[in-house]
Amino acid sequence: MEKHVLSVLAVNNSGVIGRVAGLFSRRGYSIQSISAAQTENPDISRMTIVVEGNEDTLEQIDKQLSKLVDVREVILLSENNSVRREHVLVKAGNGEETRNGLIEVANLFKAKVVDVGMDNLMLELTGEPRTISAFIRLIEPYGIKNLVRTGISALERG
Amino acid sequence: MEKHVLSVLAVNNSGVIGRVAGLFSRRGYSIQSISAAQTENPDISRMTIVVEGNEDTLEQIDKQLSKLVDVREVILLSENNSVRREHVLVKAGNGEETRNGLIEVANLFKAKVVDVGMDNLMLELTGEPRTISAFIRLIEPYGIKNLVRTGISALERG
Repeated sequence: MEKHVLSVLAVNNSGVIGRVAGLFSRRGYSIQSISAAQTENPDISRMTIVVEGNEDTLEQIDKQLSKLVDVREVILLSENNSVRREHVLVKAGNGEETRNGLIEVANLFKAKVVDVGMDNLMLELTGEPRTISAFIRLIEPYGIKNLVRTGISALERG
Repeated sequence: MEKHVLSVLAVNNSGVIGRVAGLFSRRGYSIQSISAAQTENPDISRMTIVVEGNEDTLEQIDKQLSKLVDVREVILLSENNSVRREHVLVKAGNGEETRNGLIEVANLFKAKVVDVGMDNLMLELTGEPRTISAFIRLIEPYGIKNLVRTGISALERG
């Protein structure tokens, strides 16, 4: 099934993020990723939601979201009309012998070392979602302890 | 009220992200921000949820979350035991006269220009949440068109 990226702007009434996300689960639409926080205006939140489905599903979701009183705007962001970014934090490594290899991968992607543990490193990378996935594949042989991706965050171009 | 950062690991059964977020809204707990996506294992998702409340609320949330069959782990990440990062995309500017000022702010924070429009720039920055807020305050005078923050993404140290 196709993946769609939705950008939802909503008034920050208590619990609006939970209500929007909850609507997807109640209606049986599976959220692949979500990232949601307030904007420069603390009264307004912007959510980027990635959902799988066909055109029909998408139309239904748009209709249901627009019915929520706090929702102000629902935009479908196509690959061409948007900038799509993602961030990952990953803790990996197994003692000294993996450290140099990890640092080499970090340098290759210009990832940043954000924490140094006894036998592991925590790295972070921001980039296009496919770059994040490639980075994770190269880190995997060094032993991933924990990993957190933000999911896609996106804005319309132009 | 105090802000708490929760890290939730869950089996990626259809719609688990929506179910977890929906639980907060059904129980009347307000999500300040959420970022959720699959991990290196496509069957497992990790969510970072920021919620306001006292110790009692927090205990209730932990209990309710742990009851969901797909939830594997709920960790409370304190400021000391975790690395907390955030990402922002911001489109700002009002023609040529704002461009140089925006680029100066970008250089100051080592932010990246990710898109150039007719009369605006799209910038991105990854950093500590308070750095992101400071960056946004300095961008504001140049006219913010659109802005999206991922919310806090975090992992346990060490």
